[in-house]
Amino acid sequence: MPEPTPRPVPRPSAGRPTLEAIALRAAVSLSTVSKVLNGRPGVSAATRSRVEQLLHDSGYARRGHDPERGGLLELVVADLTSEWSIEIIRGVERVTREAGLVLGLSALDDHLRPGADWIAGVLGRKPVAVVLQFSDLTATHRRQLRTRNIPFVVVDPAGDPPGDVPAIGATNWAGGVAATRHLLELGHRRIAVLSGPADLMCSRARVAGYQSALQEAGVGFDAAIAASGEFTRAAGEREGRRLFARNDRPTGFVCGNDLQALGVMDAAFALGLDVPRDVSVVGFDDVAPALWARPPLTTVRQPLQEMAEEAARLALRLRADDVENTRLELATSLVVRSSTAAPR
Amino acid sequence: MPEPTPRPVPRPSAGRPTLEAIALRAAVSLSTVSKVLNGRPGVSAATRSRVEQLLHDSGYARRGHDPERGGLLELVVADLTSEWSIEIIRGVERVTREAGLVLGLSALDDHLRPGADWIAGVLGRKPVAVVLQFSDLTATHRRQLRTRNIPFVVVDPAGDPPGDVPAIGATNWAGGVAATRHLLELGHRRIAVLSGPADLMCSRARVAGYQSALQEAGVGFDAAIAASGEFTRAAGEREGRRLFARNDRPTGFVCGNDLQALGVMDAAFALGLDVPRDVSVVGFDDVAPALWARPPLTTVRQPLQEMAEEAARLALRLRADDVENTRLELATSLVVRSSTAAPR
Repeated sequence: MPEPTPRPVPRPSAGRPTLEAIALRAAVSLSTVSKVLNGRPGVSAATRSRVEQLLHDSGYARRGHDPERGGLLELVVADLTSEWSIEIIRGVERVTREAGLVLGLSALDDHLRPGADWIAGVLGRKPVAVVLQFSDLTATHRRQLRTRNIPFVVVDPAGDPPGDVPAIGATNWAGGVAATRHLLELGHRRIAVLSGPADLMCSRARVAGYQSALQEAGVGFDAAIAASGEFTRAAGEREGRRLFARNDRPTGFVCGNDLQALGVMDAAFALGLDVPRDVSVVGFDDVAPALWARPPLTTVRQPLQEMAEEAARLALRLRADDVENTRLELATSLVVRSSTAAPR
Repeated sequence: MPEPTPRPVPRPSAGRPTLEAIALRAAVSLSTVSKVLNGRPGVSAATRSRVEQLLHDSGYARRGHDPERGGLLELVVADLTSEWSIEIIRGVERVTREAGLVLGLSALDDHLRPGADWIAGVLGRKPVAVVLQFSDLTATHRRQLRTRNIPFVVVDPAGDPPGDVPAIGATNWAGGVAATRHLLELGHRRIAVLSGPADLMCSRARVAGYQSALQEAGVGFDAAIAASGEFTRAAGEREGRRLFARNDRPTGFVCGNDLQALGVMDAAFALGLDVPRDVSVVGFDDVAPALWARPPLTTVRQPLQEMAEEAARLALRLRADDVENTRLELATSLVVRSSTAAPR
């Protein structure tokens, strides 16, 4: 017969469960508990899972201590090929350097998950804190980090992390509004929107901002000139060509990110259209290619580096203190360069 | 009176000096030797220095073991703002991920040195190996890493590392030849060279390649159209404007790197010149901005990512084996895009 409520793990007077008590309850040796805690091999999966559960249920959390200089702060980025990840690395590295820590860097594997060895590695390396550039860490992993008192923060302008996960984002909706208002103020009325993948919160928020700005200006939303695609230059070129082929060609484009915007410009140039004389294009993110582009791209700046710094600082604070506010959105801002002008 | 030869540290039968013997010789406790070895505080500078010297003189090297999965491979990059460093990170990260290791990333400080805490941190973290994107590690640091059996490799296409330092470079001279031959084959005869800082070996090698290619083609070298400057877009624009102002304007430019080439194009466009119709421009490196540029840049590809991979693999091999060849140059290759054409 299952127990109606779990038998409490005996706690020492301080109210903090000891590893001895957990070993006793799990009917394993103290050394086995220690192996599980530190991510070392030599424990069966069943025992490991039982000990993990007891660590969690007992509210065990390894006692924190001041991060030692020379310690490790781990960062897991989605993808080292994107400019986006590079900005995140720069931000976190700055904070680790200032704190006398070293940055431990991993990238997600092809399935967009940390490698199978990642969590065991983290438990063994005992980082001071973890910053993640993705939001779908499994509940098991979250629990494992919590019982080891390894705070983690998600820097994730794209996603929609669970409510109890500390996260730093950006004001995507406000960015969509700013991009669209800019084109409206220049006199554009026929403004296309090209969004990122529809399953990403950031894409939806940006398009919602575009729609709000149109509505505010009394311009109707036309689904025929609203497209979506991957966050790539190729997707921008493809959708750009498709929309430029229309009789009622848009004179302005609000794009999901800078790469899509560069693709739209490629499509324009290929058709003999000039940017910004014939068509105005606004990006989103303000990563390096926006500045390298010719003409340099008007875009909505997402402060990726500052977001990463904020995430790393929050992770370090979480280790020491109770922090009240663990969800923050940093402001986006319009950067006007040369890819936008009044319509002819 | 100084001893004519140093008194040997007593060795156990295996011929490997023990820490006990070193403690005895240094007249300190074993725990003090251990603190020095592991970069921990609580030892006076004088004692630390004496113990370091004995560790070195005795040929002590901590016994290597197979790199554990989850272990740390450290990378020190020169500067996180450069595209160059990003490519190095990508290469090393790939190897660490494949080996089940994590990448420990630090950047040099404003004085282009690893931070003061860096070496103590490294000794404490005990990485499997270290890859350095700069070549002037102090002799003391090199010695400290060697006595801990932490192999290090320099990935350094720019510099001139000491002969006993394992290093991966690129064929800079051959790259200079290839860039210049390309312009010669297109029919250019009036070809300027814009080199990087003259104190860098890579700059000198590239210019030497340029001169060799001119000589081979029977074209005289004209010092009046040979300039040098920082590896920046601003330096490229400045020198470009200066050389375009000449009556005998060059029709082609061989540049020290891609950023300089973009600056030369900026100068050309500002003066109403077209690239490649009026002037052809060749870069060096093939980092992302070369591809983003309009027109996309013809450049000499330096395989930075592969060089970094090679450096990380060499560092891991050095830990296990005697490696015969610890100096390698990977081949550069010409990538023809749209910034070069026959002169008018």
